[in-house]
Amino acid sequence: MRLSRRSEVDPFIVMDVMEAAARAEAAGRHIIHMEVGQPGTPAPEGARMALARAMEAGSLGYTVALGLPALRSRIAALYGERHGIDLSPERVVITSGSSAGFILGFTALFDAGDRVALGAPGYPSYRQILSALDLVPVDIETRAEDRYQPVPGNLPADIRGLIVASPANPSGTMLDRPALEALIGAAGERGASLVSDEIYHGLDYGFRAVSALEITEEAYVINSFSKYFSMTGWRVGWMVVPEAHVRAVERLAQNLFICPPHASQVAALAAMDCTDELEANVAVYARNRELMLAGLAEAGFTRIAPPDGAFYIYADVSDFTDDSRAFAGEILERAGVAVTPGLDFDKGRGQGTLRFSYARSTEDIAEGLARLKGFMVEKGHAPRE
Amino acid sequence: MRLSRRSEVDPFIVMDVMEAAARAEAAGRHIIHMEVGQPGTPAPEGARMALARAMEAGSLGYTVALGLPALRSRIAALYGERHGIDLSPERVVITSGSSAGFILGFTALFDAGDRVALGAPGYPSYRQILSALDLVPVDIETRAEDRYQPVPGNLPADIRGLIVASPANPSGTMLDRPALEALIGAAGERGASLVSDEIYHGLDYGFRAVSALEITEEAYVINSFSKYFSMTGWRVGWMVVPEAHVRAVERLAQNLFICPPHASQVAALAAMDCTDELEANVAVYARNRELMLAGLAEAGFTRIAPPDGAFYIYADVSDFTDDSRAFAGEILERAGVAVTPGLDFDKGRGQGTLRFSYARSTEDIAEGLARLKGFMVEKGHAPRE
Repeated sequence: MRLSRRSEVDPFIVMDVMEAAARAEAAGRHIIHMEVGQPGTPAPEGARMALARAMEAGSLGYTVALGLPALRSRIAALYGERHGIDLSPERVVITSGSSAGFILGFTALFDAGDRVALGAPGYPSYRQILSALDLVPVDIETRAEDRYQPVPGNLPADIRGLIVASPANPSGTMLDRPALEALIGAAGERGASLVSDEIYHGLDYGFRAVSALEITEEAYVINSFSKYFSMTGWRVGWMVVPEAHVRAVERLAQNLFICPPHASQVAALAAMDCTDELEANVAVYARNRELMLAGLAEAGFTRIAPPDGAFYIYADVSDFTDDSRAFAGEILERAGVAVTPGLDFDKGRGQGTLRFSYARSTEDIAEGLARLKGFMVEKGHAPRE
Repeated sequence: MRLSRRSEVDPFIVMDVMEAAARAEAAGRHIIHMEVGQPGTPAPEGARMALARAMEAGSLGYTVALGLPALRSRIAALYGERHGIDLSPERVVITSGSSAGFILGFTALFDAGDRVALGAPGYPSYRQILSALDLVPVDIETRAEDRYQPVPGNLPADIRGLIVASPANPSGTMLDRPALEALIGAAGERGASLVSDEIYHGLDYGFRAVSALEITEEAYVINSFSKYFSMTGWRVGWMVVPEAHVRAVERLAQNLFICPPHASQVAALAAMDCTDELEANVAVYARNRELMLAGLAEAGFTRIAPPDGAFYIYADVSDFTDDSRAFAGEILERAGVAVTPGLDFDKGRGQGTLRFSYARSTEDIAEGLARLKGFMVEKGHAPRE
């Protein structure tokens, strides 16, 4: 049996880091994890208790393909609360995490060979999912001055789609309303369908993240319970689609996924009422972010675009290395801090960048920053006090 | 925004039946459900209790993409118990239901435009998933004399893949060892990769279902916790792939799904120890099957291939109708029994067939059969006693 051409997917380089970190821990070392893209907190207690109760009650068979009606309604209401939008629950599609949202959305919108533009650096799975679906990812090189976000002038001409992300991974930067409007306009001029990844909404620290739905109904908006709701392993998310697309997406969802995991939907619905616990998590990230901005600068990581949201900071380390993978390896080896080489996010220029995650406890962040500073001082990249 | 060509997926006709049944129930009628393809039983109690305990313990973050190691090992051991095969846990890939298994497997094996053969009648989502991935489903017409299973002589020449299912949906028939060997051999001669859908394994009533893995390591075998383990809504299943394919499938899984739902994996692992409860379910299906074989014949549905497994019976009703959809509508309307028109399974000849499911309680089955007989007598298709 031979593998398909489209199965030739780039490996995640962060996996090497995670394995090396696990080996170091197995050997008795204490490692600070700044490589992982998931909250250190569990699902909200209310969510877990709701599911435990459902386990006593008994059956959780298939739900309908678009998900539990109560969950769709509650999510529609969230757009009223967060964005002042009157969103019909009919347009909300529950998905098996944002991953299923991308598979569904790309399948609904694009045919084999279609070119889909996306900013570099960006979430690596966008391009891998596109490739797996025989679509053609087209990088838009972004600039640090533009805070690693695409600008309309750089959009390629012959594209069928544009993916935007705000807050973005790995940079944590956001598109403000005029910037998002400009991109939506430019995509429209090119006849490109817009996919807006809003998975980090709720995790913003200065101004509120803007949803593409505030600007247009002609977009696929993808979100998830993994980040703000701290439910990474649950594989439950949602997508908002134009009303005219709901039936087609429903038929695709019936065939491709049957339904999102029922137990996860039950927990997710309850999570939406756990505001105090969730906002306490956000307060921790906000404090971590302040520590990171000060501590990374002190350690000599000065070339960063301050993040508006998510829990990442992307740093240009090209003054120190032209091999981010080796550099990350050295940081792990000598400082005991796991970080992600930029290559996962930007094939072209990621040799000169690192992503730091601050999703874990504040105590861990403080310790990690102290170690990073020690390492950078030792290397001569930061001044001794 | 325009929809893609590949989003043009056939609707499930059974959905119309289910909606009509729901309307009838809302109007106060009592409906017997012989249309649904899911067990009437909940997940095993041990599985639900294990998950409830995990909810108290706290965090369930991402698992690794291939799934919980303990679950992979336990599934590998199942092949020893059921089939006498020494299977390496490394080859077991936990998936988000068999649906994700098909998406992963088809993506790993086939490129856009590849032709993949499959028996008609068959599970409708095979062809829809193939089409959504820009693959070309090629029907193999099967015959009632061959118990609705493909035979080597009918395999098209220029195919890259062959999907077999045993026990099959909608017919419930199985491929015995020589028949499966012959198909595997014929696929090999054509250079076609084999995908074996074994989702109904464990639900067999005469002889044991044969796994493709008993015959060859060169196959993708897809299974799920939805049927035998009675965990439909949980979206957890597995796939066994050749050793040489594991890394490629892992990278695809990382990007396409990140991981299967963690909570569902915890419950699934516990379900594997609930043998008494699961075998009690099988005993109910076995009793239902006996009732169905006798009762359908008595009601005049005599043109069926007796099913070896699963919980379906496929009946040729072309003596009574050339519009199975209307016929199913009439049965629902007049007898209060919901059944599935064959069109979902066989575009070509499904106008003359129906699928009866016997996954519900024995009481329901007995009542449904009495109603069906009444209907058929009234229509003149069965003799009055």
